[in-house]
Amino acid sequence: MTQAAKFIVVEGLEGAGKSTAMAHITSWLIQRGITPVCTREPGGTPLAETLRDLVKQVRDNEQVAPETELLLMYAARMQLITNVIKPALTAGHWVLADRHDMSSRAYQGGGRGLSDALINPLRAMVLGTLQADLTLYLDIDPAIGLERARSRGALDRIEQEQLAFFQRTRAKYLHIAATEANIVVIDANQSILQVQQQITAALESAALDGCTLGKAQA
Amino acid sequence: MTQAAKFIVVEGLEGAGKSTAMAHITSWLIQRGITPVCTREPGGTPLAETLRDLVKQVRDNEQVAPETELLLMYAARMQLITNVIKPALTAGHWVLADRHDMSSRAYQGGGRGLSDALINPLRAMVLGTLQADLTLYLDIDPAIGLERARSRGALDRIEQEQLAFFQRTRAKYLHIAATEANIVVIDANQSILQVQQQITAALESAALDGCTLGKAQA
Repeated sequence: MTQAAKFIVVEGLEGAGKSTAMAHITSWLIQRGITPVCTREPGGTPLAETLRDLVKQVRDNEQVAPETELLLMYAARMQLITNVIKPALTAGHWVLADRHDMSSRAYQGGGRGLSDALINPLRAMVLGTLQADLTLYLDIDPAIGLERARSRGALDRIEQEQLAFFQRTRAKYLHIAATEANIVVIDANQSILQVQQQITAALESAALDGCTLGKAQA
Repeated sequence: MTQAAKFIVVEGLEGAGKSTAMAHITSWLIQRGITPVCTREPGGTPLAETLRDLVKQVRDNEQVAPETELLLMYAARMQLITNVIKPALTAGHWVLADRHDMSSRAYQGGGRGLSDALINPLRAMVLGTLQADLTLYLDIDPAIGLERARSRGALDRIEQEQLAFFQRTRAKYLHIAATEANIVVIDANQSILQVQQQITAALESAALDGCTLGKAQA
């Protein structure tokens, strides 16, 4: 069975369970003979990881303008797409991403209130024709997600935003999921086992190779 | 005499004499009772200075995509405008800038070949209504400028580009200067004294306050 390499994205608020989902999907793919290239955003190249640090930290009490945050996210994404994602897909490797473009639209668009008119030219510049074949959006009540994130340790600059910021971010996530193709909403308020079952079902029903990966190759 | 604060920009290739020009203009302004806030781009805030380092250095042999370079330049500019330039002008302080938006259009547009269609949405997002009242473009033959820059020490990532890159950058500078308002071309191939005389003449003939600053207030 020859498969074109696919691009799968995991999205969601802090504490939605993205890391656990990434591990579950990786395991599911490996059982089917596919070892994905895993990425995280912002990050994934030396320059992009430095930009990740810059947007997540407060330094010298400097206020970071929402537009600056947006530009840094797309700068990091440009490096990752150019130097990692596109070469991997071209070489036939599947890519499994912990956050991608939907995060910028949800956080900087929904959360910070930057308009589509500002964001769309950046998306066109940076994404070109790249599109995720499947996006799993882990939907969680921000109050629950933030409580989980807090229990893991100190919150970064963006995680320290007020609850209303994350409510706007979630609303934007849900709006995009409701209106665009190839996005599956996973109810992440449930137990890990229930979330994994939903993810497995989403992977099995997605026609990721034009046919189906629902049955393991073994 | 009440003057609205003005925004003066010095532009030009490496080795064109921007630093000397900045000092000359500062001195000329101070003689007229005006102490300008001096900026440099990319840079001028802690975050923007970090971004300056990131675009100027080659690290881990990572290729920097032209679009990444462009986005980082505008991210740095956003911070500088928001946190330094606009507050200074609002408080009545003149601003004297060592490079500004014209550099991105010339280097990333002309030099790297990125289109106006890519750059203009970033300009709209980051500049808003901000416009320089006077831009002095120090025009120099790139071969002469690079020779001067080399004699000062090691060249950074952008300065290491081939001569053709700087010829495209210069052509874009000259095209902008020929087609837009409030830009004076200074022939920087001449001696420092001759360049300073041209700069003084440009300052004196510019109606920077609606009347003229040509005569010292003393």
